[in-house]
Amino acid sequence: MLSFVGLGLYDERSITLEGRDALRSADRAFAELYTSRLTGTTLAELERFHGVDIERCDRGRIERDPEPILAAAESGDAALLVGGDPMVSTTHVDLRLRAHERGIDTRVVHGTTAATAAASLTGLQNYRFGKATTLPFPRAVAGNREVPASVLDSIERNRERGLHTLVYLDIKTPEGRYEPDDAGEQFLTASRAAGLLASAWTDGLAVAVCRAGSPEPLVAADRCSALAARSFGDPLHLLVVPGRLHHLEAESLRELAGAPATAVEELLD
Amino acid sequence: MLSFVGLGLYDERSITLEGRDALRSADRAFAELYTSRLTGTTLAELERFHGVDIERCDRGRIERDPEPILAAAESGDAALLVGGDPMVSTTHVDLRLRAHERGIDTRVVHGTTAATAAASLTGLQNYRFGKATTLPFPRAVAGNREVPASVLDSIERNRERGLHTLVYLDIKTPEGRYEPDDAGEQFLTASRAAGLLASAWTDGLAVAVCRAGSPEPLVAADRCSALAARSFGDPLHLLVVPGRLHHLEAESLRELAGAPATAVEELLD
Repeated sequence: MLSFVGLGLYDERSITLEGRDALRSADRAFAELYTSRLTGTTLAELERFHGVDIERCDRGRIERDPEPILAAAESGDAALLVGGDPMVSTTHVDLRLRAHERGIDTRVVHGTTAATAAASLTGLQNYRFGKATTLPFPRAVAGNREVPASVLDSIERNRERGLHTLVYLDIKTPEGRYEPDDAGEQFLTASRAAGLLASAWTDGLAVAVCRAGSPEPLVAADRCSALAARSFGDPLHLLVVPGRLHHLEAESLRELAGAPATAVEELLD
Repeated sequence: MLSFVGLGLYDERSITLEGRDALRSADRAFAELYTSRLTGTTLAELERFHGVDIERCDRGRIERDPEPILAAAESGDAALLVGGDPMVSTTHVDLRLRAHERGIDTRVVHGTTAATAAASLTGLQNYRFGKATTLPFPRAVAGNREVPASVLDSIERNRERGLHTLVYLDIKTPEGRYEPDDAGEQFLTASRAAGLLASAWTDGLAVAVCRAGSPEPLVAADRCSALAARSFGDPLHLLVVPGRLHHLEAESLRELAGAPATAVEELLD
């Protein structure tokens, strides 16, 4: 049996009770912590907290050589731990298909995700979100101001329908060298992302959602240029670009995220 | 302090460790189990499992008379338990705003959601989903065949962009009379929903996702008319209408959900 277990959003207590039980009862546990980051914990803390040994893998290793995981799942119960929900990356879908081909039972133990948290923390309604997108670090060749057309297109096409856009922010990590506590790691911040949007797109309302799933998340709504002038502290960050706003959504952004009334009124339904 | 605690998708073990700790340390716990259903447990089982007393509320009561919850949160630690993620309903966003106005600290403990599980279990990529929609029970006036134009519009506009649509299925319950184990409760099934789409829209590929978050979820992909002829057992069900399919998405639907090759090929990128 191969269980794909979501670790949820932030630390060793973000996992569900079902996930914890699957981890503790597994004969071998692996963790792929590259795709979705848990900034509130480390592999060593996860091992200590749950009282189990966990073998680190990166995506490249799973893709190149899935055999150790498949063999463990063939001869016993194996668990693969992944931040957030376990099936977000194609790597894991691919691994599940390989297991299925070999006749190995699989199951998915879901985890909490940034997409859910972004709606939840902002007070924006989940069914009013359109397609999500990811904003990459600006490429050097484009003078550090570039926002890919595909990102702007996603935002614009959502807004044409009045829909909000969840903008994931890029994480720069050399594949295969991931250490959760590596100080050299770089995260695109909400502040920088808002500055990129202010230049490349428009200076409309955006919402910075920082450290979702942690005990002290920060949610700040303002025009992009104003968000760009602020600093939001530790990662992870993401941005939400609102479409049209219902009354209660507008009130949430004003009261819970400090949005300026004028910027909110422009978007009111 | 008022903690909004997500119970997750299915039973008493779908909650996160953080949520469990918030529940156990609360001076008073309330549960609103109408908005998102936990079909694998009851309020009594939740109480027994966690060793706490939980007061049942429905949405109407929270809207009409939030005072008991606010008073409990003002004088101590109160927890409001909700299925899935706790802020999906506007009722809870409204309650959070009222607490905020009164100077009561609030926090959100996230839960696993159907939206995440639908992507995860089908192998469809989460960033390729467009706006979600809800299919209601057909109204008697329209000869039991009606699908609201807004639902078809959501599906069509997503498909124009190649995006998948998550279709939540209606739940019929007299507000204020909710009992989780009430046999009179009615859920729109994936089978009936697929039949409605086959009549009102087109006989394309759809995916039934049943009992997401339970130990034995069922995922079945076929043309709507074929899904309509099948029976998928206990609730909750939902449908996913795929847009364009990447290679790995197509393989997932074929291998994990039994989709016919011809129906998948029509949608291949």
